[in-house]
Amino acid sequence: MDEATSVDAETTEQPSPGTPMAWGGIDLGGTKIESVVIDSTGAVLGRTRHTTPGDGNAADVVQAMYGALLEASRAAGLTPQRLAGVGVGAPGSVDAAAGTLAHVSNVGQGWTEPYPVAADLGDLTGGRVVLGNDVQVAVAAEYRLGAGRPYRSVLGVWWGTGVGGGLVLDRVPWRGRGSAGEIGHVVVKPGGARCGCGRRGCMEAYAGRAAMERKARKAVRKGEKTILFELMQRKGRPRLTSSIWDKALREEDSLATWLIDRAVRMLGAGMASAINLLDVEAIILGGGLGTRLGPEYARRIHEAMRPHIFVPERQPPVLMAELGELSGAIGAALLAGPPAK
Amino acid sequence: MDEATSVDAETTEQPSPGTPMAWGGIDLGGTKIESVVIDSTGAVLGRTRHTTPGDGNAADVVQAMYGALLEASRAAGLTPQRLAGVGVGAPGSVDAAAGTLAHVSNVGQGWTEPYPVAADLGDLTGGRVVLGNDVQVAVAAEYRLGAGRPYRSVLGVWWGTGVGGGLVLDRVPWRGRGSAGEIGHVVVKPGGARCGCGRRGCMEAYAGRAAMERKARKAVRKGEKTILFELMQRKGRPRLTSSIWDKALREEDSLATWLIDRAVRMLGAGMASAINLLDVEAIILGGGLGTRLGPEYARRIHEAMRPHIFVPERQPPVLMAELGELSGAIGAALLAGPPAK
Repeated sequence: MDEATSVDAETTEQPSPGTPMAWGGIDLGGTKIESVVIDSTGAVLGRTRHTTPGDGNAADVVQAMYGALLEASRAAGLTPQRLAGVGVGAPGSVDAAAGTLAHVSNVGQGWTEPYPVAADLGDLTGGRVVLGNDVQVAVAAEYRLGAGRPYRSVLGVWWGTGVGGGLVLDRVPWRGRGSAGEIGHVVVKPGGARCGCGRRGCMEAYAGRAAMERKARKAVRKGEKTILFELMQRKGRPRLTSSIWDKALREEDSLATWLIDRAVRMLGAGMASAINLLDVEAIILGGGLGTRLGPEYARRIHEAMRPHIFVPERQPPVLMAELGELSGAIGAALLAGPPAK
Repeated sequence: MDEATSVDAETTEQPSPGTPMAWGGIDLGGTKIESVVIDSTGAVLGRTRHTTPGDGNAADVVQAMYGALLEASRAAGLTPQRLAGVGVGAPGSVDAAAGTLAHVSNVGQGWTEPYPVAADLGDLTGGRVVLGNDVQVAVAAEYRLGAGRPYRSVLGVWWGTGVGGGLVLDRVPWRGRGSAGEIGHVVVKPGGARCGCGRRGCMEAYAGRAAMERKARKAVRKGEKTILFELMQRKGRPRLTSSIWDKALREEDSLATWLIDRAVRMLGAGMASAINLLDVEAIILGGGLGTRLGPEYARRIHEAMRPHIFVPERQPPVLMAELGELSGAIGAALLAGPPAK
C-alpha cells in the first residue's frame, strides 16, 4: 500500500504539542471484538466491546474492528487518527511482516487466503497498524503489566475453546519463526484423541473447551447422563461456555467432572513437558476457562504437573492472569509501541 | 579457594608474546573422558581420550580429567597452565555459578552432594575452569562450528543412553534457570513406561538406549527371541551398545526393529511437541545412537514428526551432528571462552 494514498481528511488533525501519546489495541475474537486505548504506562484510557459480525467477510470484520477502536478512542477523548499506533491481536495465521491474516475459521464467515488487515485498517486510522497472534500479545501484556512482572521468563497458557500459549524468554517475547507457543498442540498421547486441528493426541484434544464439548455430546449420544446441556439450554447458549462448565463442576456433574479432571491431567503433562524443555520461572494461566475456573484449578494443574517435572525443586508457580479479558487488547496496543520501561 | 595458593611451579611458565591463545575442553562421560585443545577459530590443536576411572570418587575423576587435559595439551605443544581457560561438559546437576557438580550417577562411583569440580581442577591447571551441561555444550559446539551454523535457532537432540537436549534461541544458548533442554523428559504418554528418572511416560523411557535394553531383557525373560544379547556376548560388551543395535537392525532382528521403531515414533512425537512450542529453524541429531544410526534415521524421525507438526510448511530439517564424538569436548572449550566471530 502506498501510505500517501491512505491519508484521509482526518489525519490532518495533528495532536496538540501537549497531548500525551496514546496507542490503540484491538483483540479480535470469534464472538467479540475488544478494543482499548492506553497511555505509555499501559493504563487504559478508554475501552469498548463489540460483537463480531457473525456472517461478515474480512472487509466487514475490519470495519467492525475500526468501529470498536473509534468508540474506545472516543471514551479516551481522542480519535483513532490521533493514536501513535494501533495493534491487533488476532487468531489464525498472522504474517506480521506482510500485515496479513489468513486461515481464520471462527471470525465472521472465516477466510483462508491472506487478507491485508493492517493496510485496510491503516486506511481507516491513517496510521501504522501492526498484527500479532492473539494469545502471544495477551501473554506479553501479562508479562509487562500483569502476573509476569517479577520474572525474566514465563510461559502463558490460555485455556479456552482451544489451548493457546505464549512465551517470554529473557524479557523478550519468543515467537520462533512466527508460530511459537502452540502448547495446545504438544502431543500428550500419540495416536490419541482427534484434535480440532485434524491431528491426533494434542493436549487441546483433551483440554480445549470445544474438544470437551464434542466428547460430552458423544457421551450423551451413548446414553450418559449430564446436566451440561440442560444448563446450556436454560442459559440460551448454543455452546458449552466456561460458566456452564463451572456450574456443572459445582453441581458435581459426573461427566463434567471426568472431562475436566482428564483435561487437568493432560494440561499437567503438557505444561510439565514445556517446563522440562524450557525451565522458565513461572506459568501464567489465562483464557476463558482458565479465568473462570480460577485459582483452585491453577493449583490443581500445578499438582498435575508435579509427577512429570524433571527438576522437582524448580517447578514453577502457576499464576492466574491478572488483566482479565482486557489482556488481549492491551497486549495488542503494547505491540504497537509504548516502549518498555 | 584462594587462587594464590593454587599457583604451582608450572604456572610461572608464561606464554611467549607471539603464542596464539588456546582453550581446553573436557567432556566427562560414564565410560570415557574426551579432551581437546582448540584455538580461537575452534580448530582442534590436540585431543585425547581416557577411560573414566570405574570406581573412582569425585577427586579421582578430577585427577583423570586433568590427566586427559594434560595429554591433549601436550599434543597441542602446550601445558594446561598455558591455556586461556578450561571448560568442562558434565552429566548430572551442574551449578555453573558455584562451579559444582552433583547428582552424578554413571561416573566412577557416582556422587550426590555438590563437588567443587571447577575449584579442584583449577588448582591443577592454575587457571579458570567453567562447568556446563554435557549436552548443552555439545549443541552449542554444533551451533557455532557444525550443523547449526546457518541458523539463528536450533534444538539439539542427543540420542544415546538417555535422550538429552540443548537449545540455541536467537544465537544464544537457552538454559532457563540452568535445567532447560531436557527433551528426554517431555511426556509422550502420561502414566506410560517407567523412565530411568523414576517418572512415567517420558520420551526417554521409550527411546533411551538404557530403557530399550531394559525392555529387551524383559522381553527375553518372557521368551521372545532376539540376537541382541548374542551380539553383546560376541563383542564382549556388558551393555547393548549403539553398534549392537545397529547390527541387529541390519539383520532385521524383530525385537530390535520393534523397539527402535517405537523409539522413532516417540522421538517424532516429542520433537514435534518441541517444535510446536518453539518453532526453531532446525533440529540437530547427535548422541551415540543418533550418530551411529545416521542420516537414514534422521530422515525417519523427521517423518515421524510430520503428523504432529502444527504448521506443516514450517517443519524444520533434522540434520546430523557434524563434529562427531568431539562435539562435547569442543563445546566445553568454547564455554571457556573463544569469543564468537
